[in-house]
Amino acid sequence: MGGLAAQPSLANPADRPVGADVDDEVLLARAFLTRIAEPACIPLWGLVRRVGAVEAVRQIKAGIAADEVMRATAPRLAETDPHADLDIAQRYGIRLIVPESAQWPHFAMSALERTGAARLREYENGKTTQSEAGEDIPPLALWVRGTAELHSLGVRSVGIVGARAATAYGERVAADLASGLGARGFPVVSGGAYGIDAAAHRGALAAGAGTVVVSAGGLDKPYPASNHRLFELAAETGLLVSESPPGAAPRRRRFLTRNRLIAALSTGCVIVEASTRSGAGNTATHCLKLGRHLMVVPGPVTSAMSAGCHDLLRKHEGTVRLVTNVADVVEHIGTLSELIELSEPATADPRPADTAAAAAPADASLRQRLDALDATSRALYDSFGARRSSTPEELVSASGQSIAEILRGLALLEGAGLIERRADGFRIVR
Amino acid sequence: MGGLAAQPSLANPADRPVGADVDDEVLLARAFLTRIAEPACIPLWGLVRRVGAVEAVRQIKAGIAADEVMRATAPRLAETDPHADLDIAQRYGIRLIVPESAQWPHFAMSALERTGAARLREYENGKTTQSEAGEDIPPLALWVRGTAELHSLGVRSVGIVGARAATAYGERVAADLASGLGARGFPVVSGGAYGIDAAAHRGALAAGAGTVVVSAGGLDKPYPASNHRLFELAAETGLLVSESPPGAAPRRRRFLTRNRLIAALSTGCVIVEASTRSGAGNTATHCLKLGRHLMVVPGPVTSAMSAGCHDLLRKHEGTVRLVTNVADVVEHIGTLSELIELSEPATADPRPADTAAAAAPADASLRQRLDALDATSRALYDSFGARRSSTPEELVSASGQSIAEILRGLALLEGAGLIERRADGFRIVR
Repeated sequence: MGGLAAQPSLANPADRPVGADVDDEVLLARAFLTRIAEPACIPLWGLVRRVGAVEAVRQIKAGIAADEVMRATAPRLAETDPHADLDIAQRYGIRLIVPESAQWPHFAMSALERTGAARLREYENGKTTQSEAGEDIPPLALWVRGTAELHSLGVRSVGIVGARAATAYGERVAADLASGLGARGFPVVSGGAYGIDAAAHRGALAAGAGTVVVSAGGLDKPYPASNHRLFELAAETGLLVSESPPGAAPRRRRFLTRNRLIAALSTGCVIVEASTRSGAGNTATHCLKLGRHLMVVPGPVTSAMSAGCHDLLRKHEGTVRLVTNVADVVEHIGTLSELIELSEPATADPRPADTAAAAAPADASLRQRLDALDATSRALYDSFGARRSSTPEELVSASGQSIAEILRGLALLEGAGLIERRADGFRIVR
Repeated sequence: MGGLAAQPSLANPADRPVGADVDDEVLLARAFLTRIAEPACIPLWGLVRRVGAVEAVRQIKAGIAADEVMRATAPRLAETDPHADLDIAQRYGIRLIVPESAQWPHFAMSALERTGAARLREYENGKTTQSEAGEDIPPLALWVRGTAELHSLGVRSVGIVGARAATAYGERVAADLASGLGARGFPVVSGGAYGIDAAAHRGALAAGAGTVVVSAGGLDKPYPASNHRLFELAAETGLLVSESPPGAAPRRRRFLTRNRLIAALSTGCVIVEASTRSGAGNTATHCLKLGRHLMVVPGPVTSAMSAGCHDLLRKHEGTVRLVTNVADVVEHIGTLSELIELSEPATADPRPADTAAAAAPADASLRQRLDALDATSRALYDSFGARRSSTPEELVSASGQSIAEILRGLALLEGAGLIERRADGFRIVR
């Protein structure tokens, strides 16, 4: 594993090399975990959450993990070779970003941490059936290729998704929205399909903006192959992202689990065109579960490709927002404070009691919990007022940190039970 | 005035002749009142509401009505000649329907009675400015031409309105909706303009259904003249309706006051296409004030003619319903019970205390109030259970009356304070 540190392809093109802040052992373990089972496997995520990635891999290899984990991982145990996967990744310019890294999109993933914890509890209480629609639990790691940064996605990024069999109208609207959002500094997130997805990426690229393609299969051969040129352009200024290791084929279930990542990595999603039984409806469901803004573009009632959009507007009246142009989307995405507030699920205090407990053992003192965090998060903690709430904007000014750093730090401090969310901002827990 | 009874043109083609159930004196007084002032004149309506039509006319002619009534009626006093208007009407096959007649659309107008009473109180409390958008007070009478019945409108009729400068898309959708609704027995109500209005009437006529044209000017020369053929067809199987007497020119303000009649005569209205500053927005406002269902057809976000529709959907999220086809509209219009329930304004108990008081003087006993009503309403009263609520459906069965009769009777009994609306139906007031 010592060879990994010398692998330049694992280094982030930005100034903070990925891997430099993560043990090789952890990187290899996470690579192993993305290969050994299908994405969004509840028992496997539960094990990693409880004992960490390295120990989880040890237990699986030793055959001593829980039955359901062994069953989920047995079929691929012999063939899983993380060294080989990381080698192939290197050849294709693909990097592995893990939750232990500062490059991990902590803010975007905090919603999946919350829904995942709730879902895990259900699962452990006997609701053992995995959902066909894809579970809203975090990915175990993300394979990425490209020049953009992953860790700030979800802060002001916009998902634009819709039908593969889009009409000229839908493609025009998707491209116009993406172009306008790109020009205003909102990264666009979508899948890699024909139709709306591709039109959105082309629109963002036309505005000279980075765009994020979230794939259902390995990034060595992003699907569909005929969008190859588009993926290359996206990698030049943006990012290709996948939960699956190189060589993984895109399959139906992987598209559904992929959709939750589009939702999580977006501050809000816009459905541009969708038939009544479209995959965009699945992305919409993930958006709502994760507390993400869901926006829908209407169209002619005579068009089957807008029927799914109109269904969403009716079905989720009051929750889903009708948008017609870039200004509508930007207005709805809102300010930084609103982002953080609104990225919470709509239900009251949905955070399970055991989320903080997992990050902060009951017997750990405040000091111990703080010391377990990185220096940036500790510095953010020190910038809080003693007895009053601080808004994210105040923290930007008080800490001198970037918005992305603050969002990540807030997620970590909140997860460790060191700060709490109030109506007027965040506040230190006494 | 004796000549009026012999005028066959005042007779309803159905079995209950109009005029037969109304004194000639009342008919002449109401004809006078529609001519003497602009439609929706608050002080004039207030006077008629207090003293009745005949006495109001006497006071105006004698110059002893309140100052604001005299001011509103003075300019046309010399020229107003109800005999002449009724003569002209007869020549054009136009009849005058008055609130004292069984042919009056009591159910449809009960919403305007409620909003009108509230508005009158505001006016009398010093808010003396008439609204430019048209006051939601009842008309003093309605001039009609055609074969359809006026009195059941509002029960399951659908307004279809929209832009004059409609696109081919909008005209197609309006015609398809009207045709489908007509075929299902829902009369269509609209204005007489080019574009959406005309397309809706054409659609209803194509389905062999009656359609209702509500005009802003006199029915002797419905506007625009180039829709002449359409108006003739509408009169053959449907109805032309106007608040203004023959000869009245269509003016901007008359279009706005006309719009409240389209809303009142419809169980719900569908806006098919509208620019952002369209007259359809005015009709939408009347719908909401009257507690009518407001439905909107979306369209391409690239079309200026759908921009007003999308604005309405956003502005009144949760109140306005997006509809895409006939089934959506029918589902939303709902059942008979829902109709009556939902035709109430959304605010809690908006009925002013003086509405019932106006119809039922405080010292009038239950028996006196009941005797003041017609035989049909008294029979309906007798079909109520003693100590429990009755749904409209139960009353159909218990009374043997038609739905239109029951709706009219419920409005009158409720107005007289003899029954009250409960969540589970209507109940006798003890």
